[in-house]
Amino acid sequence: MSSHSAKRAGRPLSELLRVPAGPVRLADFDPSATPGYPGHGKSDSQEETDALGVELSDLQEVLYANGRSEPETAPGVLVVLQGMDTSGKGGVIRHAIGLVDPQGVQLAAFKAPTAEERAHDFLWRIRKALPGPGMIGIFDRSHYEDVLVVRVESLVPEAEWRRRYDQINEFEAELVAGGTTVIKCMLNVSFEEQRRRLAERLAEPSKYWKYNPGDVDARLKWPAYQEAYAAALELCNTPDAPWHVIPADRKWYRNWAVAELLREALADLKLDWPPAEFDVATEQARVEAS
Amino acid sequence: MSSHSAKRAGRPLSELLRVPAGPVRLADFDPSATPGYPGHGKSDSQEETDALGVELSDLQEVLYANGRSEPETAPGVLVVLQGMDTSGKGGVIRHAIGLVDPQGVQLAAFKAPTAEERAHDFLWRIRKALPGPGMIGIFDRSHYEDVLVVRVESLVPEAEWRRRYDQINEFEAELVAGGTTVIKCMLNVSFEEQRRRLAERLAEPSKYWKYNPGDVDARLKWPAYQEAYAAALELCNTPDAPWHVIPADRKWYRNWAVAELLREALADLKLDWPPAEFDVATEQARVEAS
Repeated sequence: MSSHSAKRAGRPLSELLRVPAGPVRLADFDPSATPGYPGHGKSDSQEETDALGVELSDLQEVLYANGRSEPETAPGVLVVLQGMDTSGKGGVIRHAIGLVDPQGVQLAAFKAPTAEERAHDFLWRIRKALPGPGMIGIFDRSHYEDVLVVRVESLVPEAEWRRRYDQINEFEAELVAGGTTVIKCMLNVSFEEQRRRLAERLAEPSKYWKYNPGDVDARLKWPAYQEAYAAALELCNTPDAPWHVIPADRKWYRNWAVAELLREALADLKLDWPPAEFDVATEQARVEAS
Repeated sequence: MSSHSAKRAGRPLSELLRVPAGPVRLADFDPSATPGYPGHGKSDSQEETDALGVELSDLQEVLYANGRSEPETAPGVLVVLQGMDTSGKGGVIRHAIGLVDPQGVQLAAFKAPTAEERAHDFLWRIRKALPGPGMIGIFDRSHYEDVLVVRVESLVPEAEWRRRYDQINEFEAELVAGGTTVIKCMLNVSFEEQRRRLAERLAEPSKYWKYNPGDVDARLKWPAYQEAYAAALELCNTPDAPWHVIPADRKWYRNWAVAELLREALADLKLDWPPAEFDVATEQARVEAS
């Protein structure tokens, strides 16, 4: 596919944003950086995103076609979105994931677990929401909440959440072995920018519904959340399912970056249109005669 | 909302496309007409659709916000898409429904029922897929298949499918009473255009996956399907949940028309942003101090 983005020189975005192996300090990641962005900045971001949308849309259709024709073997893709409140999980879904056909997208938002969900293993509700073959699954929050809010708020004993890093790695290895590409994105918003965005939600009545007093409670525990995020980024950063930190202070970059990561992952699948499962000449004759 | 479409003179599209009460002959509906289209034709359809997309997106967000803030009372919307193969149910979802935030859309595609589904009343699987408050549900095929393919193929005794028209009317009345706006769209493709589209799918390897030899089997029963559609359009055409026939030979018109019907329905809800459920000044002080 001769494409705008593919023509760009340099390393793939997935390499640029991938968290390096080893100890993680979130302070080392600049929330306002724009690595790999091919244009000039905000001024041309609509144009860049539109170009990406055309490519993404084509690639997604090939994936979907494979899922329909070869459900036993077709791959799937899972995008995991994590980040503090206001980091833009919803914005990414609207503006990046919204670029592709909704028929090929399977969205799951994970809130505080219900009583039924809490009665099961923490991965139970996650497994139920996994994308099928040919589908792009989007997790708005995920199993990582079980080592983030759960760790910060001590919702289970420490020994239990400590075990979960390995359990998550095993779970994700199993997913990847089963043919799912896993794209993990931590939307990295700065403490200052979060304040600005929360204030904005309180300044405009059309944004009140997005505001939750609990967001400030979590904000007041920022250092503990940063520590929990750093641990997840370090301990669950496997070669098969690596973490990416997406600078999220600039919304236009954040949306472009997640769309580009998805485009790269779909392109890497190198899928072709599935072959006909019928005799083409016979069917052409039937249609013509009808 | 001062809008492109709203500025247009004339009757709402929902009136123009609504099936008149009384006996229905599908031959009276022109599949290549373009009633109510505000532009010139295909040449400006992208522009018209983009303008509609902006409005739709805003209206959908208000609906969604109400669903989040007032789940007990917020309305929902259900778009029912029916039509012969190639009439463009998938195209409408991609190009019209794809205009709004995927977070606010709940898609359900109804294939031939599974053994479990067949063991229940025909509305069982339908009820499970209804949109929640604040959501836009899209049915790609629907409970109408139970008086369409089921009638044409005699999959249940005649007495049984005959009873279903009333059952459907009761079901939809119940939905509407519960706060769901129901928008029923029959995508009306002509016999000739269907042949052209089937032939196109067989002429391009990138479209093989969309072709199913069963589509020609159904095509060979065109008059029986037309009769079954006419019966459904006549017998289930209630004031609360009327049928619309969408001329579907021109894809650009078809996509625009369904998007416009959805826009009108959302605008008719006259929703406001939900009020704050917290003390704004207190929260502003908390954010500022954080």
